[in-house]
Amino acid sequence: MVTEARKGVEDLLYLAMDRRVRLAVTGLNQSGKTVFITSLIHQLLMGARLGGLPFFQVVAEGRFQGAKTVLQPSMHIPTFRYDQFLESLTATPPQWPKATDGISEIRLAIRFRPKGLLQSRLKATNTIFLDIIDYPGEWLLDLPLLGQSFQEWSKEVVTLCRTEPRHTLAQPWLAYLGALNPRHSADEGVLRHASRLFTDFLLACKREPIGLNYLQPGRFLIPGDLKDAPLLTFCPMLSPDPSLEPGSLAQVMADRFESYKELVVRRFYHQHFSHFDRQIVLVDLLKGLNRGPNHFADMSRSLKSILKNFDYGRSSILSRLLRPKIDRLLFVATKSDHVAANQHNNLERLLKRIVTDPVNEASFYGVAVETMAIASIVSTETVVKEHEGRRLSFVRGRPKGRNEEVLLFPGEIPEKIPKPEEWHKERFNFLEFEPVIARNDSDDRLPHSRLDLVLDFLLGDKVT
Amino acid sequence: MVTEARKGVEDLLYLAMDRRVRLAVTGLNQSGKTVFITSLIHQLLMGARLGGLPFFQVVAEGRFQGAKTVLQPSMHIPTFRYDQFLESLTATPPQWPKATDGISEIRLAIRFRPKGLLQSRLKATNTIFLDIIDYPGEWLLDLPLLGQSFQEWSKEVVTLCRTEPRHTLAQPWLAYLGALNPRHSADEGVLRHASRLFTDFLLACKREPIGLNYLQPGRFLIPGDLKDAPLLTFCPMLSPDPSLEPGSLAQVMADRFESYKELVVRRFYHQHFSHFDRQIVLVDLLKGLNRGPNHFADMSRSLKSILKNFDYGRSSILSRLLRPKIDRLLFVATKSDHVAANQHNNLERLLKRIVTDPVNEASFYGVAVETMAIASIVSTETVVKEHEGRRLSFVRGRPKGRNEEVLLFPGEIPEKIPKPEEWHKERFNFLEFEPVIARNDSDDRLPHSRLDLVLDFLLGDKVT
Repeated sequence: MVTEARKGVEDLLYLAMDRRVRLAVTGLNQSGKTVFITSLIHQLLMGARLGGLPFFQVVAEGRFQGAKTVLQPSMHIPTFRYDQFLESLTATPPQWPKATDGISEIRLAIRFRPKGLLQSRLKATNTIFLDIIDYPGEWLLDLPLLGQSFQEWSKEVVTLCRTEPRHTLAQPWLAYLGALNPRHSADEGVLRHASRLFTDFLLACKREPIGLNYLQPGRFLIPGDLKDAPLLTFCPMLSPDPSLEPGSLAQVMADRFESYKELVVRRFYHQHFSHFDRQIVLVDLLKGLNRGPNHFADMSRSLKSILKNFDYGRSSILSRLLRPKIDRLLFVATKSDHVAANQHNNLERLLKRIVTDPVNEASFYGVAVETMAIASIVSTETVVKEHEGRRLSFVRGRPKGRNEEVLLFPGEIPEKIPKPEEWHKERFNFLEFEPVIARNDSDDRLPHSRLDLVLDFLLGDKVT
Repeated sequence: MVTEARKGVEDLLYLAMDRRVRLAVTGLNQSGKTVFITSLIHQLLMGARLGGLPFFQVVAEGRFQGAKTVLQPSMHIPTFRYDQFLESLTATPPQWPKATDGISEIRLAIRFRPKGLLQSRLKATNTIFLDIIDYPGEWLLDLPLLGQSFQEWSKEVVTLCRTEPRHTLAQPWLAYLGALNPRHSADEGVLRHASRLFTDFLLACKREPIGLNYLQPGRFLIPGDLKDAPLLTFCPMLSPDPSLEPGSLAQVMADRFESYKELVVRRFYHQHFSHFDRQIVLVDLLKGLNRGPNHFADMSRSLKSILKNFDYGRSSILSRLLRPKIDRLLFVATKSDHVAANQHNNLERLLKRIVTDPVNEASFYGVAVETMAIASIVSTETVVKEHEGRRLSFVRGRPKGRNEEVLLFPGEIPEKIPKPEEWHKERFNFLEFEPVIARNDSDDRLPHSRLDLVLDFLLGDKVT
């Protein structure tokens, strides 16, 4: 107990000295979150060696003195298993690590020489503690529920189900729901069956090759220890009456929705989200393009819904109900190495188009929002070749599930969100790649693209 | 929110009217907890029909009017899936349901006519709400940790490891631990490896055919969402120094042990245990006998350790630190149908010998402690036959994993705990049985033994 208290005090001291940064990382469906965090840690641990972080200013200026993993402060949060994930990425043959499905964290101590003359005289070395917190994108997409009533949410879900691919997938659930009377007395068996069909619908929406992201409530997809709890046993239900009898089916559904908001969403906000300093949201934009206009719209809707949480200037949910302390927000398009190097800027621009509504831009008081296109680990090589008289940028790599490398032309990334008529069949078909097998003569630093820019945006001001 | 508040008030009303009973059910390793709860609910739902509960007074007196499952009060506690478990038990062929591995609950409403003339005039029917809470025995066995320091606990574990079967199983862990310096600076990799070996040791102790019960900390065996958290990443460590440096290996282990007590054990106490009204502890005594003296001693140690929590008269842990409101405590030897009917009383007497220390008996102020031998579901038949001139009681049933019934002589249950010299090889070899396949002409009530006595002890005073 004494030790706990002392540690609490130490932590507060670091906080007061601006020497502790809580960096939250999340992402939409299969955006490569685990690989991103693993490579980010790896790059920090490798530090200045082999020139791996040229655009991280503290490294470029020769002030970076090293980083190491240290014991994390939160006793009850699972540790991000960097050791396991790195092992998997550097095995022979290397494999993408298995995705994580809950919250986890890891702490790094970063040592650097301060920039100013005065500071560097006072102390030769400073240390900051970087806590990286990995959590499911589903939890972030749940925050907007706090601003919705059960009826508002139900209407939104039912409206979304009017278009494909939701329309077809929702039929078994909607058919069952349609036969229920919202005024009837609630029965656990009926609640469970309706909830099961709704959960099956959400899971089908999430599963490959559908892969939608805008799916709520998130814990229906990742229940953990809450499996079979009443607050995960309901579904949207439109009701003709504004006021419902207590104990009626629709009222019990509404009660459980409110409990979910209170005991899951608000608890996540208070225990975790409200303590984050910086937030990264990862997205695999290439997969979004591959899947066509409906899927791309779903991805955009998800990103916009996340962004709304930070929209202090307007009457956003978080600014009305809650207030995060996050002051830097970074949207990252991952897997940029799946297209040729000359397409990376387009990828970044496309992401910016999605998350930046020019009208709103001025309203993000106090939150710096940025977009980048990166590769956590580069698993391809760009090869420029003449083809029928034109110079084309090809990509060489080992496509997913294959043993040999191929050279292919992945095509181009549009700078703008394509208009409906521009989504002709198979316009986009970007492949996934296996990680590169390290050559014997290569160094032991995992190759990345632009992680140094990511670090500079997120940590630059903390290491001066 | 309004609804939540209203429900809270209703619940308080029931409580004030003594009309809500929270019945906690737990058990040692594979004692048949899921089947017990399923059959208990089933018997209540079947009520007085077919004469199934002759010794449950409210039924015997014709005052029982019926029971049904209703919506449970706790939104975040998983529901006990009675529906699934009953389906499994009544399938063709029937199967024992899969064991549960966390907490779950279910609520029943029981309607009865009050006993007294006055009361029955005032109201024809009363209702009580019975909340049955199913939780792992490991959690109950964790409570004594609250009264131990890290050094005390470490000493206890190391002492236990001097005898078999722990001695052999603990070697890999103890060997690694022996090479560590408790004063050295703690390293997450070392903590993780030591904890992994210790967890492997606990799992090997729990696994069949070893099947020990006295294994702490319980969440090491069932981590759930806490997997990989620091408070599950430590192990016992003896230290020569009474005071340890902060950050040293032994000190970090001790810190994590304290966090485990605080965030896992005390939280279980406050959120759950302190709200229980009655507690049942199930134990498969037959398996304990099968496994020989060391295992039997481990089972006894576990039961005594549980009992100590209720030992208000002495300086027990719970009476010093905490205070449960449980006023009836029932120890139940399950699976009595695996021996012939004439052995059931011996089974009960043997259990009483284990949990009753005559010196202590008077000290259980306010807690009625009882022991019973029961069969949640009877899956055998006792057949009395002449054998070499003697009348012997055989058992007919379908042994686990076999398709046809056999007739066998399971042997006798000792009335007292056998002395060391009495445990000759294979003295006890009680078999497990598959559930009985219901005959077409049979009724649809699952056969049980003495569940009516269990109900009368636990609920009798609440249905008068």
